[in-house]
Amino acid sequence: MKIPKFATMNFSSKLVENAVNQLSSLPGIGKKSALRLVLHMIKQEKQNINQFGNSFIDLINNINYCSECFSISDNQKCEICSDQKRDKSTICVVEDIRVMMAVESTMQFKGVYHVLGGLISPMDGIGPSDIKVEELIQKVQKSEVKEIIFALSTTMEGDTTNFYLFRRLKDLNITISSIARGISIGDELEYADEITLGTAISSRLPYENSLSK
Amino acid sequence: MKIPKFATMNFSSKLVENAVNQLSSLPGIGKKSALRLVLHMIKQEKQNINQFGNSFIDLINNINYCSECFSISDNQKCEICSDQKRDKSTICVVEDIRVMMAVESTMQFKGVYHVLGGLISPMDGIGPSDIKVEELIQKVQKSEVKEIIFALSTTMEGDTTNFYLFRRLKDLNITISSIARGISIGDELEYADEITLGTAISSRLPYENSLSK
Repeated sequence: MKIPKFATMNFSSKLVENAVNQLSSLPGIGKKSALRLVLHMIKQEKQNINQFGNSFIDLINNINYCSECFSISDNQKCEICSDQKRDKSTICVVEDIRVMMAVESTMQFKGVYHVLGGLISPMDGIGPSDIKVEELIQKVQKSEVKEIIFALSTTMEGDTTNFYLFRRLKDLNITISSIARGISIGDELEYADEITLGTAISSRLPYENSLSK
Repeated sequence: MKIPKFATMNFSSKLVENAVNQLSSLPGIGKKSALRLVLHMIKQEKQNINQFGNSFIDLINNINYCSECFSISDNQKCEICSDQKRDKSTICVVEDIRVMMAVESTMQFKGVYHVLGGLISPMDGIGPSDIKVEELIQKVQKSEVKEIIFALSTTMEGDTTNFYLFRRLKDLNITISSIARGISIGDELEYADEITLGTAISSRLPYENSLSK
């Protein structure tokens, strides 16, 4: 019995093969899904697919970062940093604009952001100099910053980055805080993992302060 | 308590928003995944993303179909149709090049293909004139075709298309067959659905012929 080798796909067209290889180079998209997507594309209007391709070319060639918070912005200064109503003395440190958008959507934060553009990860060869750490330190030294809030993922990389930033910032006479870790709103306690539950108990706070806003 | 509205994402950049909208227009990719992919892209080399975008533009502007079997091919005639060793009198009818590639990878078929480019689906407004049906009939009438093998999905659309093609082809003095439906190799019988198992029993064949090749 011959074993089919689907892993090495034999494409009848180099153009299709190239498009499939490009799509499947993205994380989480395999060759079979990529081929399905490409066959979907060729059934679309030519104009739509030209726009599709050009959107990525436009993005990579014209991308611009806010000069203050390093979020992606079409202008020299992003909307939040140019907003006079935002409190410039409180800086929320985030990994990327996805977290920034998530915090913004809570409507609980009136300060400004600092986008690191990654997390320290020795395993992936990403050190403090590869992300916007020095820029944060300089910002704190130069301007009137009162509080830095770490809003980083509770992963090894997030904790490492938190710790490194804390060591660099602790002598600069500012308040350093981190977003609360505990039980998610709506979660049932019996399914919480022991580390989260333990953290939630040791970080307990007065009942009146614990209500969701 | 305010409910976060993440569904309407507020992008800080039109370029990012555009790229995210384009990616999430593909089936199976949501806005959040699209944003994750776009943030992955902007960390890549500019040249790679230019190539990424151009691969789809190249594809849609230069795509070509084999003049005989209608598979996607960079040449006027695809590799299989121009291969003298392939048996031109046996035609395997498939929905798209994905099925063609799957059949090719079995190395069990030495004939040629006919790619319909879709299945008849009244629900989606796809009729016989939207797929390559007439071209198949003409091919059978004009050239020395001995056998047509239907290799279509066992869905309502596949069965409808099978039935329509059968009606159009049955008076043309050729053998019309369909790939066997039955229990997958490696499957345990107690988990097979009753329709498949019923079909497998009624389509039983001499033991010597039932062995996998």
